[in-house]
Amino acid sequence: MKKTHMRLSDGRELIYFDESDTTTRNVTDPRRLAAASAVPRLRFDAVLGEWVVMAGHRQDRTYLPPDDECPLCPSAEGRHTEIPSGGYDVVVFENRFPTLAYSPAAAAAAGPDAQAEHAAAALHAQLPAVGRCEVVCYTSDHNASLPELPPRRMRTVLEAWVDRTIALSALPHVEQIFCFENYGKEIGVTLRHPHGQIYAYPFVTPRTRRMMATARGHRERTWRNLFADLLAQEVRDGERIVTRTGYWTAFVPFAARWPLEVHLYPNRQVMGLPELSEAERDDFCHVYLDVMRRMASLYDTPIPYISAWHQAPVRIDRELGYLHLQIHSAQRAPGKLKYLAGSEAAMGAFINDVLPEEAARMLREARV
Amino acid sequence: MKKTHMRLSDGRELIYFDESDTTTRNVTDPRRLAAASAVPRLRFDAVLGEWVVMAGHRQDRTYLPPDDECPLCPSAEGRHTEIPSGGYDVVVFENRFPTLAYSPAAAAAAGPDAQAEHAAAALHAQLPAVGRCEVVCYTSDHNASLPELPPRRMRTVLEAWVDRTIALSALPHVEQIFCFENYGKEIGVTLRHPHGQIYAYPFVTPRTRRMMATARGHRERTWRNLFADLLAQEVRDGERIVTRTGYWTAFVPFAARWPLEVHLYPNRQVMGLPELSEAERDDFCHVYLDVMRRMASLYDTPIPYISAWHQAPVRIDRELGYLHLQIHSAQRAPGKLKYLAGSEAAMGAFINDVLPEEAARMLREARV
Repeated sequence: MKKTHMRLSDGRELIYFDESDTTTRNVTDPRRLAAASAVPRLRFDAVLGEWVVMAGHRQDRTYLPPDDECPLCPSAEGRHTEIPSGGYDVVVFENRFPTLAYSPAAAAAAGPDAQAEHAAAALHAQLPAVGRCEVVCYTSDHNASLPELPPRRMRTVLEAWVDRTIALSALPHVEQIFCFENYGKEIGVTLRHPHGQIYAYPFVTPRTRRMMATARGHRERTWRNLFADLLAQEVRDGERIVTRTGYWTAFVPFAARWPLEVHLYPNRQVMGLPELSEAERDDFCHVYLDVMRRMASLYDTPIPYISAWHQAPVRIDRELGYLHLQIHSAQRAPGKLKYLAGSEAAMGAFINDVLPEEAARMLREARV
Repeated sequence: MKKTHMRLSDGRELIYFDESDTTTRNVTDPRRLAAASAVPRLRFDAVLGEWVVMAGHRQDRTYLPPDDECPLCPSAEGRHTEIPSGGYDVVVFENRFPTLAYSPAAAAAAGPDAQAEHAAAALHAQLPAVGRCEVVCYTSDHNASLPELPPRRMRTVLEAWVDRTIALSALPHVEQIFCFENYGKEIGVTLRHPHGQIYAYPFVTPRTRRMMATARGHRERTWRNLFADLLAQEVRDGERIVTRTGYWTAFVPFAARWPLEVHLYPNRQVMGLPELSEAERDDFCHVYLDVMRRMASLYDTPIPYISAWHQAPVRIDRELGYLHLQIHSAQRAPGKLKYLAGSEAAMGAFINDVLPEEAARMLREARV
């Protein structure tokens, strides 16, 4: 695999991940884009004790452009996209409408000590939303979708996630690296071209903080890792397993919140993607594509989904984590979505209309 | 106001709240419905330390029926609905497809002691989902909407909330009473007839638990109530206030998560709806209708919303609470909704594209 770094015309970083070691990428970006000036802010919600990102400048972002104006396609004669080259395997670049971003002044102001001081000093604390938002394009084929990727390409995407996790973990104030994919216009995806995203947050996210709190409680009671024990319990129960190999296990969790929800764990506990072995990486590509094909085959039309990597935080509570992928879909029947209504959206109390054992059976029996 | 209790043909309770003290309600339900047999279950999610409701039987519930089959309209010759009478002011009845429900065996099995024991004993704890789900119909007029209700009718709805909060708080194992309304097919509302709901949960909901945890921290640091201090801070800042009277204050919170989000607090701290004084109740009706009319007037079409009462829990942490109403909408521009994508749905990290000060200004300047 060959990595080639370059800068877009407004200074954003772009990286090609090429499967051939002899590929040359030297086309520059001729667009003369102005550098982004808006700086998103973090505000502290004292009611829930959580940071919220205020990103008013994103209201004008690109929304479902016609296929011939896709900014994630390779550039062509007379049509310059976000990717200057005429083709690519996998490419990663900084989002043009980021919710988390560095500016020299922002980075200087937002040390972790300053954060703690701000949050404690006032009910209405506010900080620059430092961090980074990147886009990961899986293929230059606009009409492809993740389940159709060959395992080798999936492996190149995985190598990009690993590379970015290492690089972004080294940025100042970054506390969590989140690799994910939103798929489907039903959940507001604004670009159809097959792609995922990476967020480098300057805080441990609210959900991860809660997960680490329960993991700490479990460790104090049992001296063991919560996630390892849950995986072992799912393997013992068996009825919610979707697929299991020598390296990975995919299951619908016992208390799934969504009509379709699959958690994919490496059988060996690691904290993050960079620690996966060669064999684990290779096997992941087959298992993940198998799971995604099973989900895609359930109904006549593609289903919307969110696929989310849970890596241990960069520093805080890192020792309590266990790398795993959570995939969920709001599709509860053909043409029917589960919506987050009062109980879920206002009180956080989830109601699932599909039994996890039933969802696991459907996925096991799917023809792929 | 006159209250009349009756039972529907399958044993469910129904209560008329009539504005005239002389109204008689004695029509019986001739439908011979079979009593519900499915019992929803709670499963404990050990990863987040939260209960999830499993309600597989609800997949077949009524979904956007034609207007002439609405189950919330009064009954008419040859058409028997959920409400036997030929008309009503406000009526409350047990949901036919409940996510929380009592059965004699379930109630016996699920004492709080049994709950704690189950949850601690196994990673995969499961309990009957005891509790209650009720429907609150605001008017017999199918085509009305909440912002159009006269203040007197709003007051009758409020009296129904108060009555049910007192009654449901006395049920065994109930820990939280949640009065709310989901509005709009964009968020999956299955019936158009103007109505809200009440859930009586057998646990303190995840969001309320977090709110009480931050409130406890604030009290330990300052000896003061967190919500009272936040209200005072919003009044001091002023720029996010939508409307304020001698009894109530409506504001867009400093760290709002949604493009439209209004919190409505009584100026005097009370724990729950039953403690509101006569004057506070009367004034609420005017202020709430004013806020809802402002929201409804922003765009050409009605916007979807969730309106959610936060009452202090029935027992646990009750002293830390402060009654207030949180209204939010996912509408971020005409024809554009905010969706919960990876950052929000998988990590709980919210990104708001609309500045709270801007949302407050729009609502203040709305013509109503």
